[in-house]
Amino acid sequence: MKRAVVLLSGGLDSATCLALARSSGFEPECLLVRYGQRHQVELERARAVARSMGVGAVREVTVDLRTIGGSALTADVPVPKDRPESERARGIPVTYVPARNTLLLALALGLAEVVGARDIFIGVNAVDYSGYPDCRPEFIQAFEALATLATRAGVEGERFRIHAPLSGLSKAEIIRTGVRLGVDYALTHSCYDPAPDGGACGRCDSCLIRRLGFQAAGVPDPTRYAAR
Amino acid sequence: MKRAVVLLSGGLDSATCLALARSSGFEPECLLVRYGQRHQVELERARAVARSMGVGAVREVTVDLRTIGGSALTADVPVPKDRPESERARGIPVTYVPARNTLLLALALGLAEVVGARDIFIGVNAVDYSGYPDCRPEFIQAFEALATLATRAGVEGERFRIHAPLSGLSKAEIIRTGVRLGVDYALTHSCYDPAPDGGACGRCDSCLIRRLGFQAAGVPDPTRYAAR
Repeated sequence: MKRAVVLLSGGLDSATCLALARSSGFEPECLLVRYGQRHQVELERARAVARSMGVGAVREVTVDLRTIGGSALTADVPVPKDRPESERARGIPVTYVPARNTLLLALALGLAEVVGARDIFIGVNAVDYSGYPDCRPEFIQAFEALATLATRAGVEGERFRIHAPLSGLSKAEIIRTGVRLGVDYALTHSCYDPAPDGGACGRCDSCLIRRLGFQAAGVPDPTRYAAR
Repeated sequence: MKRAVVLLSGGLDSATCLALARSSGFEPECLLVRYGQRHQVELERARAVARSMGVGAVREVTVDLRTIGGSALTADVPVPKDRPESERARGIPVTYVPARNTLLLALALGLAEVVGARDIFIGVNAVDYSGYPDCRPEFIQAFEALATLATRAGVEGERFRIHAPLSGLSKAEIIRTGVRLGVDYALTHSCYDPAPDGGACGRCDSCLIRRLGFQAAGVPDPTRYAAR
């Protein structure tokens, strides 16, 4: 089996991405990044997701992006709530974390080189998403080109491949794919602003996109929402 | 004055790079990355360098690359000593840290976006260097292309510029440039394997390249070497 580094966040997308990496025949080396996100509960959910798919060890790297800030996820900026779709479709929201996916992929690339993997999976999606620039296919392609130039393996004639298998799927299609592959979405966490007990707010963009996804997929929504 | 993020390491190159950024009219926002390097003494030297050039605050981000390892700088692998130039010119040594410059530039990019800078300075050099792939001009160019795709600013039509002003200079030329700009090289630290008191070993690749650079530049070497 070929090894692949899989970026895991605890969310619905990365869980599906991990299931797809496995079903494509890769042996996953999961990487979790504690970057100072306000929804740190996602980290333990990510471990639960990995365990549920038989992945033993998960590698965790800590990097404190709160030193840089500039996002509602890494600074004391409120997470927007109850935004209608017309508003969500416009522009890049304050939950965008500057250069986050560049950073996550850089860490994944370093790990890939160390463990001898040439494949990296990232669960970015560019259909039902928040308009983050670093989720777009052109960004992923540019990183793939960079990866080969950046590394010892690249100098030695090898190539890295960045897999973004969810890129062109709607949230409903992602959910149907995961259900088919046996993903337990009750373990996943999407909310940007969870209650202290880990319950989802149900009102941030991430919760809204997730809820609509389950509705559109015709799959019961297993999300545990916080009591209001 | 235009702001620029300057990656600082405490070494000779990044000190010169900071001096060049200032002399080009930029207001530097210095970024220091504590990545688990064995030569952590470089971090306090970096602060001393910044202070000596009148830069008040230095932003420090911690990311633990020891979790990933794979390098003599971030794992328990010995730093090679006393390698002759013929050997140093061959291949990529074990002091290469997988994807380090991709990571450093990702952090610099995030900070640049937050502080409104569109210029990033990095002191990579591709003449008297250790053959690290992520010091080459083609890597820097690829990162520049990526930066625009990765960010909100890029989506909004702005461009980032990655400045690597030392790229084509020999170590002697770098030192002469720095001397002309008033860099106090006694504050800088290059050694990969310093003694507990911070003294340079004088035998690792980085020490050898530095020592030869001062010789070739005809500049007295202010390095404090450890007692053997």
